[in-house]
Amino acid sequence: MNPCAVPTEIKDTDADNRWMSIHNRFLSECREKDPDVIFIGDCIFETLQHTETWNLYFAPLHCLNFSIYQDQTQHVLWRLQNGELDNVKPKIVVLLVGTNNVHNTAEEVAEGILEIVKTIRDKLADSYIVLPTLLPRGHQPNICRDRNNSVNHLIAEKCAGMKRVQTVCIDKGLIQTDGTISHHDMFDYLNLTTASTKKVFEPLFDLLSQILHENEPEKDLTPSE
Amino acid sequence: MNPCAVPTEIKDTDADNRWMSIHNRFLSECREKDPDVIFIGDCIFETLQHTETWNLYFAPLHCLNFSIYQDQTQHVLWRLQNGELDNVKPKIVVLLVGTNNVHNTAEEVAEGILEIVKTIRDKLADSYIVLPTLLPRGHQPNICRDRNNSVNHLIAEKCAGMKRVQTVCIDKGLIQTDGTISHHDMFDYLNLTTASTKKVFEPLFDLLSQILHENEPEKDLTPSE
Repeated sequence: MNPCAVPTEIKDTDADNRWMSIHNRFLSECREKDPDVIFIGDCIFETLQHTETWNLYFAPLHCLNFSIYQDQTQHVLWRLQNGELDNVKPKIVVLLVGTNNVHNTAEEVAEGILEIVKTIRDKLADSYIVLPTLLPRGHQPNICRDRNNSVNHLIAEKCAGMKRVQTVCIDKGLIQTDGTISHHDMFDYLNLTTASTKKVFEPLFDLLSQILHENEPEKDLTPSE
Repeated sequence: MNPCAVPTEIKDTDADNRWMSIHNRFLSECREKDPDVIFIGDCIFETLQHTETWNLYFAPLHCLNFSIYQDQTQHVLWRLQNGELDNVKPKIVVLLVGTNNVHNTAEEVAEGILEIVKTIRDKLADSYIVLPTLLPRGHQPNICRDRNNSVNHLIAEKCAGMKRVQTVCIDKGLIQTDGTISHHDMFDYLNLTTASTKKVFEPLFDLLSQILHENEPEKDLTPSE
């Protein structure tokens, strides 16, 4: 049994029930709002939401962001199988999760991601599913970077040809020529600084804009009489 | 032995060495910069640093911020005993840590904080030490809130009368009349939203400004001849 692909609740070991409170809030947002795009993920997207880039670029596309700091693939899977895509009909779901699966193999993580893709497809037959690449991490080269890189290759391979599923490369330009990542780009060598957020997420923004634009209802150009 | 008061390194279980890389960066900043104020803490201060409030209010006071997301008192203690206050002579050290000690008692956490205060005092005999109160957490009332509240009382009591040690209350106004905390104030019921950051940290900013102002070298008003 691959732990990355088994829906798993995060245990409330802190005894303040925060994870479940956040999940419940996402369920309310599903009932109350009508998003065109839903972001689902972990700390990378959670951090994105508190930036000017989110406010200026993504929020105007009618995005909701269902991301929780420490989540791994199995936790996102649990959330989606427990209501976070019910009562909504987004045109696009953007999924970025897996960097926190630090104790699994690339194959297990990729399988976990594909299981989430399958869950999204089961719930939303017509939506586009967009998969940005996992980002590198750590100040120096390390096995987490290697794993994330392998996951990206596996996902690109497995998703090639899937209908309305697109990967988008956002992981270039962060590793410097000496192999290090600067704290000017990732303040904790995992999450993006405000300054680097715009640059890193630009290809994602462009892809979302393009999909939304291409799928706008055609304007009827026939004169009305 | 109280685990909160024993200097402890965070094990690199993720195998990307991020915690130590961040610590090493703080050591470089100590060698290269000449801060008037040093912030030391966990996720609460780490989140603060990526806000407009930091840029507009705190950064101009010549602040450095040595905060790491998941740190507990024992980890901050290790960092300080391993160089993070060497080669600097700040006028003020601001310490906010303890909310992540979720498996300890209030007494243990308070003792951990006091051990850090002692370490700061040993290294910086003349600096002011400012202790903002731990913030409440969790959407609903919970034992973490109760513990943080008790820690605040214990610290206020123990620090009363200590020379150049000041507590500052920043934990009011977050809990609503029905006992809940809004995600508009704390997006994950632990860390502050950009919107609430300014309000919550205003008393701290005022205190820092006051201390810095009062301790400015007196301008020599005697005519030079």
